[in-house]
Amino acid sequence: MAQVKVAVVGYGNIGKYSLQAVQAAKDLELVGVVRRKESLNKKSPELEGVKVVADIAELGKVDVAILALPSREIPEAAKALIEKGICTVDSFDIHGKDIQELYKSLDAAGKKSGAKAIISAGWDPGTDSVIRTLLLAMAPKGLTYTNFGPGMSMGHSVVARSKAGVKDALSMTIPLGTGVHRRDVYVELEDGADFKTVESAIKTDSYFCNDDTHVHAVSCVKDLRDMGHGVLLERKGVSGETQNQRFQFLMQINNPALTGQVLASCARAVVKQQPGCYTLPQIAPYDLIDMDLDEFLLHTV
Amino acid sequence: MAQVKVAVVGYGNIGKYSLQAVQAAKDLELVGVVRRKESLNKKSPELEGVKVVADIAELGKVDVAILALPSREIPEAAKALIEKGICTVDSFDIHGKDIQELYKSLDAAGKKSGAKAIISAGWDPGTDSVIRTLLLAMAPKGLTYTNFGPGMSMGHSVVARSKAGVKDALSMTIPLGTGVHRRDVYVELEDGADFKTVESAIKTDSYFCNDDTHVHAVSCVKDLRDMGHGVLLERKGVSGETQNQRFQFLMQINNPALTGQVLASCARAVVKQQPGCYTLPQIAPYDLIDMDLDEFLLHTV
Repeated sequence: MAQVKVAVVGYGNIGKYSLQAVQAAKDLELVGVVRRKESLNKKSPELEGVKVVADIAELGKVDVAILALPSREIPEAAKALIEKGICTVDSFDIHGKDIQELYKSLDAAGKKSGAKAIISAGWDPGTDSVIRTLLLAMAPKGLTYTNFGPGMSMGHSVVARSKAGVKDALSMTIPLGTGVHRRDVYVELEDGADFKTVESAIKTDSYFCNDDTHVHAVSCVKDLRDMGHGVLLERKGVSGETQNQRFQFLMQINNPALTGQVLASCARAVVKQQPGCYTLPQIAPYDLIDMDLDEFLLHTV
Repeated sequence: MAQVKVAVVGYGNIGKYSLQAVQAAKDLELVGVVRRKESLNKKSPELEGVKVVADIAELGKVDVAILALPSREIPEAAKALIEKGICTVDSFDIHGKDIQELYKSLDAAGKKSGAKAIISAGWDPGTDSVIRTLLLAMAPKGLTYTNFGPGMSMGHSVVARSKAGVKDALSMTIPLGTGVHRRDVYVELEDGADFKTVESAIKTDSYFCNDDTHVHAVSCVKDLRDMGHGVLLERKGVSGETQNQRFQFLMQINNPALTGQVLASCARAVVKQQPGCYTLPQIAPYDLIDMDLDEFLLHTV
């Protein structure tokens, strides 16, 4: 079968790990990386032999663009590609109304152009959403708790880093149990920046304002970096009339590596869908993997 | 939206719990129960007001039949219904080649008649298969171990009970770790039955011959019955080039209650599919639940 032609758009952490996952997959072909103009001359040994361009049009035929961009840049970037007929996958991570809006925008654009999008396809939202949905099917009544961390939240770190006066930042998610979290944000300030102003800008941002957030000034954020992360997802509920059905999903993972892999697996899945937009639980899990149906029925089901 | 009209075919343990799950779901309508002729006069308080018939044709319009039958009766029963244009869901539990064959038979029949089938839709095969598939998408290289129990295997108990000389039987699955199990089969013999003959008939059956199986004669199997069961599913693998990604799925559940619930959730999902046959990982998890898309995007994704 022909390989799926994949471009990686953006080359931060997620972009780097997406590229590795695409290169490791036999059925995916990396056609190139799209970077900002000012980053085009940055040399990276792992980009040796990879076409790096500023405009996706320079890559020729692209089936799927993996959008490894900050969440807030995704709605515009995804819509522009979908309108051009290029499928997109992203790990847009702002839960709630923002996902609804992105879904509606890309679903309408895709149904018009014939392209398909999988949105919010990291691990949360993403694979955790699949587990939450499956547990609702297994025990429709009850409560689910998603406990994150301890680990660095990349989305929250990007937002903290974007604040005026912040040179570097790292946001840790600390699980307090039953879905309650504390956020510890470590900031390295620019010369002359005011800590109180930075602290307030972070605490009032919509990414942080619903959690117990603590901001700490440190001299070197790099010394704190560790990409390890985790989740403990729990449900206790009722199947039919039977109480106390108990489920746990636990993982300890390298965060951007898992996100990059999920995006690459979605690049494979997205081309198999009908035009429109999908979140991960709206995709058949089998579409995400590269396995012959006969072998799948024999060994995985 | 119109309710999905569901018939429960077979009224053993799985049938009873399927009926509860169907009755608990607002979008499903129980149209009746199909039992063997000789069981039609058995009274059960929970069947008060439920139409109980020997032939599904007596129930009028049926969208979906939940086949709560022993696995070995399913291929024939499912095919007959699919050929009549009635969708089926079942929890056929003989892994490997038998699933392949059932899939092919019902897929061909469904594509001809326009009906749809979801097969092997209990918890293993079934929801565990979904988890295994998702973990393959998250960490394509690596090993998955499925550890069952301790708990009673209903499929294996039915097979042990079917042997000549056996009055009642219970098969326990004992996890030894890393996917290795022992089976302890407790049998209540009929008067005059030879234990050695029964033991050999059980140990050489294809359900048992691949596991370390121990058969024990007891005076009363009923005293040992407990429907609790569990799974610990583990994967350690590689996302892209990143090693040692670790995942665990753990559940402690009432076995037939979970199977009955998964079957009822599949009754909802099956009518949304294109004609043909599906295993659970070939279905979008969102199709399994009764939730408006807007609410789903807002609260579950």
